[in-house]
Amino acid sequence: MPDRVCLALVHHPTVDRVGTVVTTAVTTLDLHDFCRLARTYGLGGVYATTPLTAQRDLVASLLDHWLTGRGGEANPCRRQALQGLRVVESIDEAARDVAGRWGDEPELVATSARGGGQRVSFDEGRRRLASAERPVLLVFGTGWGLAPEALARCRWTLEPIQGPGEYNHLSVRSAASIVVDRLFGR
Amino acid sequence: MPDRVCLALVHHPTVDRVGTVVTTAVTTLDLHDFCRLARTYGLGGVYATTPLTAQRDLVASLLDHWLTGRGGEANPCRRQALQGLRVVESIDEAARDVAGRWGDEPELVATSARGGGQRVSFDEGRRRLASAERPVLLVFGTGWGLAPEALARCRWTLEPIQGPGEYNHLSVRSAASIVVDRLFGR
Repeated sequence: MPDRVCLALVHHPTVDRVGTVVTTAVTTLDLHDFCRLARTYGLGGVYATTPLTAQRDLVASLLDHWLTGRGGEANPCRRQALQGLRVVESIDEAARDVAGRWGDEPELVATSARGGGQRVSFDEGRRRLASAERPVLLVFGTGWGLAPEALARCRWTLEPIQGPGEYNHLSVRSAASIVVDRLFGR
Repeated sequence: MPDRVCLALVHHPTVDRVGTVVTTAVTTLDLHDFCRLARTYGLGGVYATTPLTAQRDLVASLLDHWLTGRGGEANPCRRQALQGLRVVESIDEAARDVAGRWGDEPELVATSARGGGQRVSFDEGRRRLASAERPVLLVFGTGWGLAPEALARCRWTLEPIQGPGEYNHLSVRSAASIVVDRLFGR
């Protein structure tokens, strides 16, 4: 089942510190971390979504370096990870691509550092994903998180990762790593 | 107890792809991710270790930006996280600093993506740390991991994080996040 779960790293629509809907810039290190994570846990791949053509071109040139260029020659493990990356315009395009690969519309699952609403516990999420019949797109927001319209696009939302106190400002790289381990780790 | 556990992000002695002992360059994003992780899980702080003066100066100027400069004004959450960062020359200096803060030599615990030897399971590690009487320094290597001499300096080593297959090339940011969650998460 995990091989039909993909991660979506979303750069729009996300919110900034004050809640304005924005398009965040792609951080190339995120792409490496997400792809290495997906490959380690046997997931189906990673979608980087941004509506900005120049940003998608940036990702394409990064991919070129690692898949066919000198990066991949020097570091085959990194090439192997980045083979799982696709760059698309939107969450919808990612969902269509997943549907094309597995012949079924994916279930969209959101992640959020904010609680409230009908958040699903990690235990329950693990059970749901283990028995899911459709492919799954697990959606992560950059910046200060997914905009409400992106959250609303998802079927359900996982509970936030919480430490002992109030502070829970993990990077999206850390959050995705912990979420994937909790959902699919041994 | 977690408040007497610190993370050490080690840039020397580490190994490169072919096992040569090297000094890796500081990736400033690592410092953010480690500090945000430590703060979220209520740990005692983060030590960035590098023997290179110019690299320690780089970290100092980063800290200046976030602790007293415009970064911290614009993003107080980030300032709060980076308040936990100390930059030192070596693992030994980090251990001495921990000893100074809590009046007792820390127990050094290594992490590694490689198995073999007397690796300690996460369940057992969690038990050990929950009942540890001394402060703990949890040691992470950059590059291709800690050099043998750094591993040997530690009291015990946690088992690697493994997915379903052979591939386990997580970034140090991902690995540290998963390790901390497994050891101290709810």
